[in-house]
Order: sequence, then C-alpha cells, then structure tokens
Amino acid sequence: MAENTEKRTDVNELGEFGLIEHLTKRFPIKNKSTIKGIGDDAAVIDSGKMMTVVSTDMLVEGIHFDLMYTPLKHLGYKSVIVNLSDIYAMNAMPKQVTMSLAFSNRFSVEALEELYQGVEAACAQYDVDLVGGDTTSSPRGLIISVTAIGEAEKDKIVYRNTAKVGDLMCVTGDLGAAYLGLQILEREKQIYLSNPGVQPDLEEQSYLVRRQLKPEARREMIKEFSKAELVPTSMIDISDGLASEIFHLCKESGVGAFVEESGVPIHPDAEMMAIKFQMDPITCALSGGEDYELLFTIAPEDIEKVKFLPGIYIMGEIVEASEGIKLHTKGGNIHPIKAQGWNHFKGNE
Amino acid sequence: MAENTEKRTDVNELGEFGLIEHLTKRFPIKNKSTIKGIGDDAAVIDSGKMMTVVSTDMLVEGIHFDLMYTPLKHLGYKSVIVNLSDIYAMNAMPKQVTMSLAFSNRFSVEALEELYQGVEAACAQYDVDLVGGDTTSSPRGLIISVTAIGEAEKDKIVYRNTAKVGDLMCVTGDLGAAYLGLQILEREKQIYLSNPGVQPDLEEQSYLVRRQLKPEARREMIKEFSKAELVPTSMIDISDGLASEIFHLCKESGVGAFVEESGVPIHPDAEMMAIKFQMDPITCALSGGEDYELLFTIAPEDIEKVKFLPGIYIMGEIVEASEGIKLHTKGGNIHPIKAQGWNHFKGNE
Repeated sequence: MAENTEKRTDVNELGEFGLIEHLTKRFPIKNKSTIKGIGDDAAVIDSGKMMTVVSTDMLVEGIHFDLMYTPLKHLGYKSVIVNLSDIYAMNAMPKQVTMSLAFSNRFSVEALEELYQGVEAACAQYDVDLVGGDTTSSPRGLIISVTAIGEAEKDKIVYRNTAKVGDLMCVTGDLGAAYLGLQILEREKQIYLSNPGVQPDLEEQSYLVRRQLKPEARREMIKEFSKAELVPTSMIDISDGLASEIFHLCKESGVGAFVEESGVPIHPDAEMMAIKFQMDPITCALSGGEDYELLFTIAPEDIEKVKFLPGIYIMGEIVEASEGIKLHTKGGNIHPIKAQGWNHFKGNE
Repeated sequence: MAENTEKRTDVNELGEFGLIEHLTKRFPIKNKSTIKGIGDDAAVIDSGKMMTVVSTDMLVEGIHFDLMYTPLKHLGYKSVIVNLSDIYAMNAMPKQVTMSLAFSNRFSVEALEELYQGVEAACAQYDVDLVGGDTTSSPRGLIISVTAIGEAEKDKIVYRNTAKVGDLMCVTGDLGAAYLGLQILEREKQIYLSNPGVQPDLEEQSYLVRRQLKPEARREMIKEFSKAELVPTSMIDISDGLASEIFHLCKESGVGAFVEESGVPIHPDAEMMAIKFQMDPITCALSGGEDYELLFTIAPEDIEKVKFLPGIYIMGEIVEASEGIKLHTKGGNIHPIKAQGWNHFKGNE
C-alpha cells in the first residue's frame, strides 16, 4: 500500500554516489557548527576549541561479508577499522565508536561474544572507546552499523577537495592485496562447497588473506604527519579502489592527475597471485578495493618531509583538469584511468 | 565454518538490556574526553567548551516497521525523531544526524526519494543537518541506522542515574496512544489482507495513528526547561513503555518510585480505543512504547517552575530503593509495577 508504484527508476541507473547526491542535494545546512556535511570521508563539526569528525558505515551479510569464511571476531575488528580509516583520512584521531547490530535468531550469545571480541581488540589497538549502539533482531542475516567520532585541531583537518595543480600524489602501503585475498577465499569456498572433506590451506597466502579479513587503518601515518609538521593538501581513504578514489579526489578538487604505474605500490605476494589468477596486477591495484590505505597530495615543497617516511609512495602529480586523469604505464603508454568502484546495488528479492 | 558451534545460548535468555550489558561489560574507557559511554540515552563527549552528545538507533523492516501501512515518508521522519528524542532526553539540542540505509532492489529511486522527503521534513522541523551516511544494498528488506549528534553546556547535561529520594517524577505529553495506533493499523491490515477490496478508514482515529506513524520529539520542553532555568535531576525518553523506563531510571539511580495512576496522562482517544480493544488503558500507558515523551525527575523546590508549564504531568515521587517501584491505583490499591519492555528478539530464520 505504501510504496509509490507510479514510476520506477532502478537505483543501478544512478550508481551509489549518484544516488546519494540525488537524494541529499536539497538538504540545506542550517547550523553554523556544521562545517562539512555530506561529501567527504567524514562530516566535520565545530565544537568550539576542536573539530569533531564523524563517519558511519554499514556492513550487510551477503553483500559485504560472507560468514562461510569470515570469522566473527575478524568481522567485528574490520567493522571498526573501516570507520577509523575514514577518520584518519580527515587527518583526525578517532576517539569513540558506536556500534549497532541487527541479527537473526541464528546467532547465539556466544557468536555475538566473538564479534564483540573483535570490536574490543580494535578499540584496544586504536585507543578508541565503544560508547553506544543498539542491538535488535532482524528477520534474516546480520547487519552492522558503526559510527566513529574523532577530533582534530581546526587548522589540521584535510578534505578531499583541496588538491592543487603541481601537488604530488602519494599513497601509503600497498594496493590490491585485499582484493586478491578475497579471490583466494572465494576460490576455497567453491572447493569446500563441491567437496566439504577438503580443508583449505591458507597459510601460504596469509598476507593476502589477512589484508582481506583483518585490515588495519593507517593511524601511524597520521602520527608521522604530525611529527613531520606535514599537513597534506588533500586526502581520502582507499576503500573502493585506487582508481575510484583518484577520481573522487580530482573531481572534488577540480583537477586532473598523472600517475606513474611504476609508482603504484604492489606487494610481491599480490603480484604473484594476480598472475596466478590470470589478472593484471595493476588492474587489481587500481580497482581492487578494501585496501584502507590513504591517498593524499602534498605541496611540492613538502617533499623533504615525506621522502624518508617508510611506507609512503609518491606515484604521480596533480595536473590541470583539462589534462584528465591518466596512467603512464611501465611500457611507456599513456591511458586514461577509468573509475571502477564497487557496485553493491545488485541484490535480489 | 566461522560460527562457534560448541555452546549455544539463545539471546532471549538475556533479553536486550542484559545482552548489551553482557557484551560490553569488559570494554574499558580510555579517552578522558569520554564522559559517558554505554548506559544512557546518549553518549557524552567532552569537546572542550561544550559537551557533544551522540545517540544511535537501528530500524529493521519486519521488526520495527511494516511497509504495508507505513508510508516511506513517515518512516524517514520517524527514524530521525526516535534519535532526536534520545538527545533531548540528555537535556541537549540535536544539531546533526547521519543516516545509513541498506535496501533490496525492490526499492526504486522514487521510493527512496519518499523516504528522504521524510528525513528532510524532520531535519527542517527540528533544525538539524543531515551530514553523512552510507547507502548499500541488502539481500532482503530495508534497514535504517541513524546517529544523532547534539550539544549542551557542561552543567546542563541530565543523566538517568541521578534521581534522588524526594524528587518528583514528571512526564511530558500523554502515553499509550502510539501503541493503540499500532493496534488499529494491525487490525486494518488484517481486514485488508482478508478482503483487499475494503479500504481502511483511519480518519476517525487520526490522533492515535499519527502518534504511531509520525511521532514528534519533545524539543519545546527542553526549551521550556531552559527558559524556566530548570535542570531536571534525571531524565530518560519513553521509547519502550513508561514502566520499563521507570525501571531503568530507578535501577540506574539506586532508588524506588511511587506512581499515582491518576497522574499518568492518557489521551481520551487512547482511553476509548483501549476499552474498544478490551484492554486496560493504564496497561497501554505503562507498557505500550513508542511514545517518545520524556520521563524526568525534579528537586521538590523546583515544583514552582513546572507547575504552569503546559503538557507536563507530575505523577509520582522518588522513594528509597527498598520501597520498590509501585503504582497507587485509582481504586486505592498498591501494586508493584512490572517492566514489560519490547522484546524484539523473536526473529526467525
């Protein structure tokens, strides 16, 4: 009775980012304490002395995780990490999280305890406090919603829309490993389903599997920035794949980018596994997703501050928007980079 | 593979509040900015000059709402209101909300637009900004998670664990109407399902139905408190039924309560409908839920400040814990009040 049946536009026609923009474009900002609303890794609220930074993410069973190969403890850990990553991407420090759960009666108290052990481990590791939440039942499956709250000094907040032509583009850590970890787990699941007697041996690929199941957020980088007195000119976390995040950062900043393929960090295990799966390693790095590394830009004169920081890779330069977003391959060719973020809107009912 | 199958305790054995306590009891508070964690209507964070107050709630299709009789616009409105109510219950003013949605491909862009129209209406009505969120797909159904962020001066925050013996117990508005509205909607749904040709006529019961589908939060009361320079000694919002909230407030404060049945406000429409459904009106008021009124206590010397405030009812007194929590009926009897909150843990899978 309640649903509008007159016109029906499928959400896939807009895509995730198009949909959010479409649904929220008319919302005005009324409070002067609201410094940044929708459109960055986190919202920014003026709290008087400091800025309060807020980010939220929802994880849905069957869409974001598969309990066939995801231990609940790891899932609890990861659900906190993905939110902390958004706070670090604002150059802020997370301090509190809230966690809401909806779960079917398939989940026992012991299963929920495992999940909370992971949440507890993440809170302990990153010095954040669990301060609230909601638990309720669901007709089917497990849904997790986490909100992270952080703080930063007013002049330290870094947005994604402030990259400037001439800035250097940098990334932390290596890319594509989490995606390849997922491919391994999916392959083992299929083997298990067709022959439940075979136990998977994931030891050899522990790096890739760990990057998928138990990612970390880049707190130490934010601390290093602070020590080096470096404030990036723009920053975004890499959750949907490097290419997609480069697109967001460039589009929001009104600039283009020139990226060296040789500058994109890929772990040797990821490189080997990509080849084994007959995939191109750079494609995995560009489109893989779930890396939770930081993509950021710095003013050229700040190069001395990052040069000696371990785990930071300079991989390109910000150029005029008219020059587009391009990859200079190891073979010497120049290709436009296509944004291929995740499209989760493929459910069924 | 991932679930612990060794021991299985059903969550119903603990109940919602027992479960939260069980799962979160080991979480230590590490940040000195965390003033209040789990255990009140909202968390309280010290932001330097002001306090930041954070509350979150999850609404699940098939558990919290039925789209057979809930217009999506009303649902969007209500999902914001239930969170604002928690912020007001801390004597704080909400300023921002985030909203995360998971929805199956049954939902069109037009359907989501309706939902967001309701969110927008609530934001406009209560002067809050939508500052973030997440949209994703779900294998089945609609799940909404809202987080509200508010602020208050440090000495104005009101907790639920600070009621004192001798305080007067007050309530805003009237109770039980939302529950009776739900009964009407459920009855009409059954009639519709058995005979789809019959269109429901809800006009006559518009007050009760509105209290269920489009509740409001008690902002004006928080403003009145401020004008009257009144700071309640304790406060909680009534989402799970008056009896349940009296229990929380008393348990957390280490006190008992003596409530006059004649002091519990019930709207004439609710009284009439309860009788029509062969229910006791006071039972509906005590156990109904979803009223989103405020239950609060005041120091006896503050009675002059509330006496002339419209829509505030003095209904009892805080007594020693040893005296228990009791209702003095209109018939002159004294009964212990039993907490009968909602038990949502009755899903199926």
